[in-house]
Amino acid sequence: MLSELVKTAETADVLGRLRELCAARGLDGLASRLTDLGDLVAADMSRLEDELLTIRSHRRLSERAASHLLETGGKRIRPLCVALAARVGSGFSPAALDLAVAVELVHHATLLHDDVVDLAPARRGRPAARVEFGNAASIFAGDWLLIEALQRVRRSGVDELLDSLLQTIAAMIDAESLQLELRGRLDTDRQSYFEIAEGKSATLFRWALGAGGRAGGLGADPCLALEEFGNHLGIAFQLIDDLLDLTGEPGETGKTLFTDLREGKMTYPVIVALERTPALASLLQAVIDGGGAPEAALATAIRELLEQSGAIDESRACAAERVALAATALRRLPKSEATAALAMVADSTVRRTR
Amino acid sequence: MLSELVKTAETADVLGRLRELCAARGLDGLASRLTDLGDLVAADMSRLEDELLTIRSHRRLSERAASHLLETGGKRIRPLCVALAARVGSGFSPAALDLAVAVELVHHATLLHDDVVDLAPARRGRPAARVEFGNAASIFAGDWLLIEALQRVRRSGVDELLDSLLQTIAAMIDAESLQLELRGRLDTDRQSYFEIAEGKSATLFRWALGAGGRAGGLGADPCLALEEFGNHLGIAFQLIDDLLDLTGEPGETGKTLFTDLREGKMTYPVIVALERTPALASLLQAVIDGGGAPEAALATAIRELLEQSGAIDESRACAAERVALAATALRRLPKSEATAALAMVADSTVRRTR
Repeated sequence: MLSELVKTAETADVLGRLRELCAARGLDGLASRLTDLGDLVAADMSRLEDELLTIRSHRRLSERAASHLLETGGKRIRPLCVALAARVGSGFSPAALDLAVAVELVHHATLLHDDVVDLAPARRGRPAARVEFGNAASIFAGDWLLIEALQRVRRSGVDELLDSLLQTIAAMIDAESLQLELRGRLDTDRQSYFEIAEGKSATLFRWALGAGGRAGGLGADPCLALEEFGNHLGIAFQLIDDLLDLTGEPGETGKTLFTDLREGKMTYPVIVALERTPALASLLQAVIDGGGAPEAALATAIRELLEQSGAIDESRACAAERVALAATALRRLPKSEATAALAMVADSTVRRTR
Repeated sequence: MLSELVKTAETADVLGRLRELCAARGLDGLASRLTDLGDLVAADMSRLEDELLTIRSHRRLSERAASHLLETGGKRIRPLCVALAARVGSGFSPAALDLAVAVELVHHATLLHDDVVDLAPARRGRPAARVEFGNAASIFAGDWLLIEALQRVRRSGVDELLDSLLQTIAAMIDAESLQLELRGRLDTDRQSYFEIAEGKSATLFRWALGAGGRAGGLGADPCLALEEFGNHLGIAFQLIDDLLDLTGEPGETGKTLFTDLREGKMTYPVIVALERTPALASLLQAVIDGGGAPEAALATAIRELLEQSGAIDESRACAAERVALAATALRRLPKSEATAALAMVADSTVRRTR
């Protein structure tokens, strides 16, 4: 089946587009090596995009709000994980496609609700859906995508995955809620940080990998290995997100710097820096209290203290460690193109710039 | 099994409490006749309350927001419908209990999101959860209850009910979204009104009845009759809700008068009155534009025009007609205590005062 896909000019075209997309999204490492991976994932991701296109609708205000966000794209890293995990097994079946779409929809549903919760002005360099269509439409849009996602998981016919997705979403809400409670709390510790990161980021990656594996017909042990890979990847992904908020290029990330901090979200580098440089607390408090973008001098001072404290390096090292753990989990699986691709995804994640 | 339940003092006690509750909630007609129904539903509803108690949690902010709403009670009319529909069949099994809890949780989830959407200050005579715990916690609380509901439907083991509940929730979101678009539009017509009422109110009643029937082992035809009953009951319920917003006693309903109107929601009596008394438009527009509670003189003038136009009577007649249609649907089922009880529920619905 794969060789048939390779033959079509369309697939080659899609592959080229995917490489460009990866490069444009800061996943350069992955982009350059996608040539080796060939069309293993290109056709899968093209089918994903086609399927996502069918969901977009402009009939209702809530659908327009959801479509506005879906149109901004995103890295599609979660569905990519589903596709690759499925290819560790018997391949990217229609059921696996449904699961890949579902994981992306759940991710987008949480973004729609989070942006209302955070009163976020922008997302991916465009005005947030809540700004264009209102908070109300954004709430219903998130509800709608969640239901669309669950319907696809039902359709996939793997009922245990519906249960695990419901548990995953429950864990995500729980973590978001804990994060809400700890807003602006400079005394947040590492344990709470990892509880939040695991719940709000890692569980969905974990589910994506397990779901793909199961759709690919893999047994319990390989699926568990994939899930562990997903969990570590998710934490690494969150740690890099934290870093990009402090050190990223706004032009690339599509986000304003220090957004997490202004929203009172305690990220890993900030927690580590506060342990080592308690004097940082008053500067951070000023950003939280100010609410808006900090003045350039204040931002520079904070960034320098973060660098000097070694918190940036430690966060990067912590992400790298998670990627190493992810790779270790992968080694419990027989070597294949798909496992190599997954290792590349993890590797590229820590080097992404948006 | 029923006779065993009757014997216990606890059941009698529960029955008394239920009658009191019905009376306190303005369902007096039902309360006085519950003596005849005996403990048919009393024990069921007691199990429901016990189960709802287990859901309440104060661990997270979102759970506290959800519990705040759950503690205010409510009429429990949707789970009552599940229980009675199940008793049309083989009885109120543990699966039926799960479904009864689920329908109440879905209802509460929509209330939590609606109150954020409407920026509502109060619900059931108490400050809304969003006022006590914030909009963010209310959004996550709604998400949480939705997932809890879906998990219970999965646990019930009747998978087609999960699909139909997902479709039901999708229809509810669609209707809420249409309502959002038509806010403040005095030219809203009856067709749009019924589209919204069907989607936001009737579909969940329909599901409750069908779910109960299926859990009670009934076949396709009796379930369809129950669903039609539920659909008509839901529309009648919404029509009375509309009337209570204009003519109810705030002390009983727990709501401020003219809330729908102030939020720009076009209710049935308002649409009918506008057809007959176009001069009403400028007064209604003043309430919508004002946003707050209208001055007493304005409220009185509007209420008088609504009465004089015959819109109040027509709305009441329309609700009564739906109850009659509901009763007709019921007659397709073999007569039983449970069908008699369902007829009473429908009958009491149009005479409720809150």
